[in-house]
Amino acid sequence: MTIKLQQNSSKLKIGDLVHLVGEKNRGYVISLTPGKEMQSHLGIICHDDLVGLTWGERVQTHLGSVFMILQPALDDLLRDIKRQTQIMYPKDIAYILVTMGIGAGSVILECGTGSGAFTTALAFTVGKEGKIYSYENREQNQNTAKKNLELFGLSEQVEFKVGDAIDGFQERNIPAIFLDLPDAHKYIPQVRESLIPGGFFGCLLPTTNQVSEMITALKKQNFAFIEVSEILHRYYKPSATRLRPADKMVGHTGFLVFARRITHYHENNKDFDF
Amino acid sequence: MTIKLQQNSSKLKIGDLVHLVGEKNRGYVISLTPGKEMQSHLGIICHDDLVGLTWGERVQTHLGSVFMILQPALDDLLRDIKRQTQIMYPKDIAYILVTMGIGAGSVILECGTGSGAFTTALAFTVGKEGKIYSYENREQNQNTAKKNLELFGLSEQVEFKVGDAIDGFQERNIPAIFLDLPDAHKYIPQVRESLIPGGFFGCLLPTTNQVSEMITALKKQNFAFIEVSEILHRYYKPSATRLRPADKMVGHTGFLVFARRITHYHENNKDFDF
Amino acid sequence: MTIKLQQNSSKLKIGDLVHLVGEKNRGYVISLTPGKEMQSHLGIICHDDLVGLTWGERVQTHLGSVFMILQPALDDLLRDIKRQTQIMYPKDIAYILVTMGIGAGSVILECGTGSGAFTTALAFTVGKEGKIYSYENREQNQNTAKKNLELFGLSEQVEFKVGDAIDGFQERNIPAIFLDLPDAHKYIPQVRESLIPGGFFGCLLPTTNQVSEMITALKKQNFAFIEVSEILHRYYKPSATRLRPADKMVGHTGFLVFARRITHYHENNKDFDF
Amino acid sequence: MTIKLQQNSSKLKIGDLVHLVGEKNRGYVISLTPGKEMQSHLGIICHDDLVGLTWGERVQTHLGSVFMILQPALDDLLRDIKRQTQIMYPKDIAYILVTMGIGAGSVILECGTGSGAFTTALAFTVGKEGKIYSYENREQNQNTAKKNLELFGLSEQVEFKVGDAIDGFQERNIPAIFLDLPDAHKYIPQVRESLIPGGFFGCLLPTTNQVSEMITALKKQNFAFIEVSEILHRYYKPSATRLRPADKMVGHTGFLVFARRITHYHENNKDFDF
Repeated sequence: MTIKLQQNSSKLKIGDLVHLVGEKNRGYVISLTPGKEMQSHLGIICHDDLVGLTWGERVQTHLGSVFMILQPALDDLLRDIKRQTQIMYPKDIAYILVTMGIGAGSVILECGTGSGAFTTALAFTVGKEGKIYSYENREQNQNTAKKNLELFGLSEQVEFKVGDAIDGFQERNIPAIFLDLPDAHKYIPQVRESLIPGGFFGCLLPTTNQVSEMITALKKQNFAFIEVSEILHRYYKPSATRLRPADKMVGHTGFLVFARRITHYHENNKDFDF
Repeated sequence: MTIKLQQNSSKLKIGDLVHLVGEKNRGYVISLTPGKEMQSHLGIICHDDLVGLTWGERVQTHLGSVFMILQPALDDLLRDIKRQTQIMYPKDIAYILVTMGIGAGSVILECGTGSGAFTTALAFTVGKEGKIYSYENREQNQNTAKKNLELFGLSEQVEFKVGDAIDGFQERNIPAIFLDLPDAHKYIPQVRESLIPGGFFGCLLPTTNQVSEMITALKKQNFAFIEVSEILHRYYKPSATRLRPADKMVGHTGFLVFARRITHYHENNKDFDF
Repeated sequence: MTIKLQQNSSKLKIGDLVHLVGEKNRGYVISLTPGKEMQSHLGIICHDDLVGLTWGERVQTHLGSVFMILQPALDDLLRDIKRQTQIMYPKDIAYILVTMGIGAGSVILECGTGSGAFTTALAFTVGKEGKIYSYENREQNQNTAKKNLELFGLSEQVEFKVGDAIDGFQERNIPAIFLDLPDAHKYIPQVRESLIPGGFFGCLLPTTNQVSEMITALKKQNFAFIEVSEILHRYYKPSATRLRPADKMVGHTGFLVFARRITHYHENNKDFDF
Repeated sequence: MTIKLQQNSSKLKIGDLVHLVGEKNRGYVISLTPGKEMQSHLGIICHDDLVGLTWGERVQTHLGSVFMILQPALDDLLRDIKRQTQIMYPKDIAYILVTMGIGAGSVILECGTGSGAFTTALAFTVGKEGKIYSYENREQNQNTAKKNLELFGLSEQVEFKVGDAIDGFQERNIPAIFLDLPDAHKYIPQVRESLIPGGFFGCLLPTTNQVSEMITALKKQNFAFIEVSEILHRYYKPSATRLRPADKMVGHTGFLVFARRITHYHENNKDFDF
């Protein structure tokens, strides 16, 4: 069964992915299934009772708690996963997609499935025409990710693979490879082996020391156009008469490193800013 | 003719979209066409001479200047457009896509085609299965955008429309609407009319005063889950032994405002943080 | 009795201001007084027992809890006050001092004594040769501030005054005036009356709406060189091998607005960037 | 002759330090001297002609260019020095002063006089009762700094010393030491030798690699309460109706590292967050 995030009908129907938002903006993402129930500490909602309701309406649990009925954005799916484990932030995921050329029909290999947040984002973005190869060395982790992807109707375009980065990847001529695992700088030769000439490399690293190690590894393996950056996201209190940034903000989620595989390094590459 | 950004062949062929990167990382995006020439102040490159070369290789102009041959990312397409006019930044575009639920197959309406940068990002992301309605009241502007989209092979999924926001939009039950035009807060009733219940609204505003006006307009029209934020992007000098943030950074590109159309506002919506 | 923050002796003596830092960096600032005790939930330390110890040493409470013995910086005094109420942050205070020309021997008038944090910073910076006029309309608040200033040995150079900004200030030709009170933009005529021609005006405002109101008020009253800015302070985890920004940061403490009183506005003031 | 920044008279007189601000906010700091002239490409102003004018007024050069007459803040002195060489930014200087306990009457040793910008800030802040020891190994540099300090009437409290950090500092029991020179992490033993127990150490480092080296050096030499941070300063366009952050901002000026000399490191120092 294929689930699409966007709906062209204003009424809910079986198969829809629904974002139920309760008190304090706490949300749950469910896939409307006949006979199923959404259970939370705020009470129960029967999936069947939602069918035929209008998007943007409100519904009550059997305990009287109120939930808003909304279509989920990718952002909401990611937050839903996030409640379970530490994941990449939407702001970082978004920039990675745009920088690594990922859109409808794209092919990408990631190593470090983790809880599947980034896999979800990739699968959602590339669609049925695209293809994700997702490696992970801990099979159990990958099973959680699989379940999430299936719930969201996004598992079809993902090929999950159990394997260690040190052994390399079976695929060749992959247009884009993303690493999200410890000691990522150790696997750049393996990345080069599987990446198409000119292809996109990306990773997210927590510390400055790791960024230094990664830059060294990338230069050694003839990667160029190395870009290091970080994305800061600042929220505001949405008050028309008392507009101001929120008191607290996330201070750090990681450094983004991108590079391109070039054929070989000429001495006069110094003409380029890499 | 359909052009895809990603290539599964390691060699260039007619129809490929190519990013030629010269000195100081100055880049040109071309679509390989038989008999055509790329002309720049650094010299000429014949498209035909590129066919059969390997991605990530280097090529010289007739004047001896060197260019790297790379597959373009969405980011590069946007920068290519950017040389012509003031456009939205990739960091903002990326976050908008993720927050408004845009992926393969999505439908979205934008008002303010401008130079077509955001239109390009949308068309690239939604793919052939998706659909973009792009309104603009200055037909001439839209023509530039059209040409860009055609060059990138992304025009098929876009329906360009000449029209003024004040007159509203012909479409109904659109899942997501984005405004990028002056006085955007004046057109929220028109947005509500065309947006599906629960649907996503987004806009990018330069000043705090406009954000205040927009919040007021959204509340008046029963929008909820209003989110105001901004994205700061900080680049680092990619040196392994002298890693440090770049001396200069872009200080401001605009405030992002998102909201959802809800059916109607209940008094006890105060349970939600909107 | 005068207490100086800096000590030229390596041993503690009666009259010294001492920063006792316990578990989790929780600190207490005390003024060494014969016969007095420092009481906390971690146990008691007799002031007399500290006399003759070396700065940078450790001492135990009667319950065995350990405290480091340190000389306090202004920063520590401010944090000590901070435990009691919402105060201005050191990063903001620091920049205000430098921008408004405050150093040894300076004269400044502030309105809004509050808990006395900024008053402390001013009194510490201007020294005995300087002079602070500190207005507050709630006498009780001012008493707390007075007690803090006395503890720190900084009250001599401060003249506390009970009064409302609407009634203006008794002083004339004051070189610098700082407002930290609600609706600060309403009192710019009163500020102009007491400020020396060319003098420095400063304030800290929470919202963008207030900044807009303040800019309007300042222009109306012939202030020029209006500067609006904010200071973001980003901490790092001090690990040599895993250096990275802290996970959380303070997102907003207020907008700083500075301006200068000019004699009168000429039409060709447009030559200046104000 | 002693020059004070702040004036209690509304009229200019011989000996006053004056900030002349011309077109595009370009400023000059002069010390009013009988018979002297201020010469710029915009024309000449005779010092004597300024005597008796009111602060905040305007004056014209012999070529008709207009200058505003303002009292300089420390900030303006620093910017005046800045035109000559790369210096520390006011935002960083300000935070260093507050964090290292520097106020009226303080004693501090700095190594790396440079162009004297930080020395100026220190001398201004500590006043005549305070004392600065300023080391520099390039005598010529120090002479420029000396001239600046003399112009500003701030040289009395500064003892300039020519010497290399590797040879250590002659002073002992100094309450605060600041390093601003290459390879600062190599001189921490010398700092420890001259710093009072519990005393304040500070430095400003450009790269993350240097911060890592400094943390290692400080831990090895029994420094504690190591704090690493950076200050970002964001300016706004001061328009009441179009309030927004400036388009460009300074992205990086350096990492601030602070620490305290403790007597010796106990194993159970792990109770503290250092």
